Amino acid sequence: MKKIGILGSTGSIGTQTLEVVRENKDIEVTALAAGSNIRLLEEQIREFAPRIAAVWDEKKAKELKERVKDLPVKIVSGMDGLIQVSAFEEMEILVTAIVGMIGIRPTMEAIKAGKDIALANKETLVTAGHLIMPLAKENGVSILPVDSEHSAIFQSLQGGQQKAVKKILLTASGGPFRGKKREELADIQVEDALKHPNWEMGRKITIDSSTMVNKGLEVIEAKWLFDVDVSQIQVVVQPQSVIHSMVEYEDGAVIAQLGTPDMKLPIQYALYYPERRYLPGERLDFWNLGKLDFEKPDTDTFYGLALAYEAGRRGGSLPTVFNAANERAVQLFLERKIGYLEIPKIIKECMERHKNVEQPSLEEILDTEEGVYEYINSRK
Amino acid sequence: MKKIGILGSTGSIGTQTLEVVRENKDIEVTALAAGSNIRLLEEQIREFAPRIAAVWDEKKAKELKERVKDLPVKIVSGMDGLIQVSAFEEMEILVTAIVGMIGIRPTMEAIKAGKDIALANKETLVTAGHLIMPLAKENGVSILPVDSEHSAIFQSLQGGQQKAVKKILLTASGGPFRGKKREELADIQVEDALKHPNWEMGRKITIDSSTMVNKGLEVIEAKWLFDVDVSQIQVVVQPQSVIHSMVEYEDGAVIAQLGTPDMKLPIQYALYYPERRYLPGERLDFWNLGKLDFEKPDTDTFYGLALAYEAGRRGGSLPTVFNAANERAVQLFLERKIGYLEIPKIIKECMERHKNVEQPSLEEILDTEEGVYEYINSRK
Repeated sequence: MKKIGILGSTGSIGTQTLEVVRENKDIEVTALAAGSNIRLLEEQIREFAPRIAAVWDEKKAKELKERVKDLPVKIVSGMDGLIQVSAFEEMEILVTAIVGMIGIRPTMEAIKAGKDIALANKETLVTAGHLIMPLAKENGVSILPVDSEHSAIFQSLQGGQQKAVKKILLTASGGPFRGKKREELADIQVEDALKHPNWEMGRKITIDSSTMVNKGLEVIEAKWLFDVDVSQIQVVVQPQSVIHSMVEYEDGAVIAQLGTPDMKLPIQYALYYPERRYLPGERLDFWNLGKLDFEKPDTDTFYGLALAYEAGRRGGSLPTVFNAANERAVQLFLERKIGYLEIPKIIKECMERHKNVEQPSLEEILDTEEGVYEYINSRK
Repeated sequence: MKKIGILGSTGSIGTQTLEVVRENKDIEVTALAAGSNIRLLEEQIREFAPRIAAVWDEKKAKELKERVKDLPVKIVSGMDGLIQVSAFEEMEILVTAIVGMIGIRPTMEAIKAGKDIALANKETLVTAGHLIMPLAKENGVSILPVDSEHSAIFQSLQGGQQKAVKKILLTASGGPFRGKKREELADIQVEDALKHPNWEMGRKITIDSSTMVNKGLEVIEAKWLFDVDVSQIQVVVQPQSVIHSMVEYEDGAVIAQLGTPDMKLPIQYALYYPERRYLPGERLDFWNLGKLDFEKPDTDTFYGLALAYEAGRRGGSLPTVFNAANERAVQLFLERKIGYLEIPKIIKECMERHKNVEQPSLEEILDTEEGVYEYINSRK
């Protein structure tokens, strides 16, 4: 019996992870954590019978405790609760499907407790890759990517040799505004940006896809996961999202992973790695696929991607600035307080005024985040 | 120092193998064999200094012996010579780049002598896969595919598990007559059929590509190499020949190998497997690739492919009939003695009149080949 825990169980990746659990009889969910959706979390507790469950919101945690008092589950809350779930003894793999930098500390505690990490929380590596990767190595822990692209790269690296990797080819759909020029994006509304051509995802990541900031975060994430320089990572626009990513080797061979857009595949691959097992769902039908297109990304229009390369190259606390500025800007856009083109503009502004800290500690990372939020708030 | 031998050193794969050897300092050619091109073989002997060299044609062998009497190389001839080269003691890997069923016996002798096989001779597995594969297993010998497609499949299987393989997706360019209907092919001349859109290859295999019989041979070869049923092998037309082949796993993930059309890659991969090392040459440029198309093969027009599936499914001596009938028919076409559409017609005719032998011995395979040749000669 494989025992897993999920941070962010009520979100998009969290619920799909539970779908994978439903299909497999030899996996058990022992720990769950959610933000505030206690209605769904209660259902999950009743179905999967974890031994511990965390709710971020303290008031909601109390409410849930009352609602599940008939069950043998411990309800915890806040950062302390998240950490209890992350380091829970009866658990081998932690799926970190929480959104935001809030995931860093729990992930580090899980690693220290020897848990393998099925990583779906981009911010962890983007902002603290220099802390996370050595910590994982030190504790003999595997960091298994759950992001569709990173899983594809991970799959394409199987049986290959790290020293023979020449290039990572990170594919991108290009989002709903592919082909548009910057000036055409001035009047984009929340509704427009929430229409992703291929993938069903959460709101924040859907906006990030439309600005290609998401691809930028993935570039920085890939740098840490696969121990390459950002200059070795090439973003290739592949609008049909059939090729999930590729690796080019020294000899010129390119190995790619292709599939339908179904997050359950990378989730299951991470949970059972290196085993592959049957997964219900649609298959690629090459006889009726038609064509696949390839393009260079337009980093003039989507210059958030270029900013990510800069942050990834310079490192230090700058990726934290990139991430935090984007997070807050997207939030303001979703609240209709700023226009669409303000998103990359705010990121650029924050990066320009930041004094970079080399090898920042976790505290310095969190201070940097706080500083960015304060600046953006004061700016309005 | 890796010591290799090459059967068919003056042919297309043979000369490209020697180009790979030129680029690598830790590889030594100890044995060569060619059909009759002693002018080129002499040059190769002077450059690579093998200890033994075979010439199929006995008269030419004598001539060569005279010409290289200043060198410490043993010149041998005929089938006996081929076998001496194949089992040559100071050799670890034999590249079987010879064309035709003539390759079966030398390959079997090499396996018995414990040599790994870099296999570029399709006919060996197509006609005698049921003998070769168990023999290789018994002798602890690896059969490393050199065909571009099979190498791509082999590369896509690395790090995967055999039991999780659902499907082999064998790509095909579709050849120069893709999109044409059967009646449009009646007047095809030798010159038309020798124009392959993507690959530079020998004459026989170029004709086989145009009829898709080559893809049929590859289907049967893949069945043996990767231990799958022909029903698990799906041919996908990918006219740009960028995707060299793919594997679909149980979970729906498809792993593919992509590259430029350069046979030196699969050759080098087979010689250094599992190591990948730098290979000079053009790289895929995804930013300027444009598009990749995918189609279902037209097995009404190119019904040689359908016949191959039948031969592969029924097995026994039928694949030998398929192969021998095609070999002779292509020869007659190249000699302008029959029309283009006669090629699949002759194959079909020979298959229909053949009484299948289950698990044929090597003698029965060679007798079957002989019988097919006699029938086709008598038919004219």
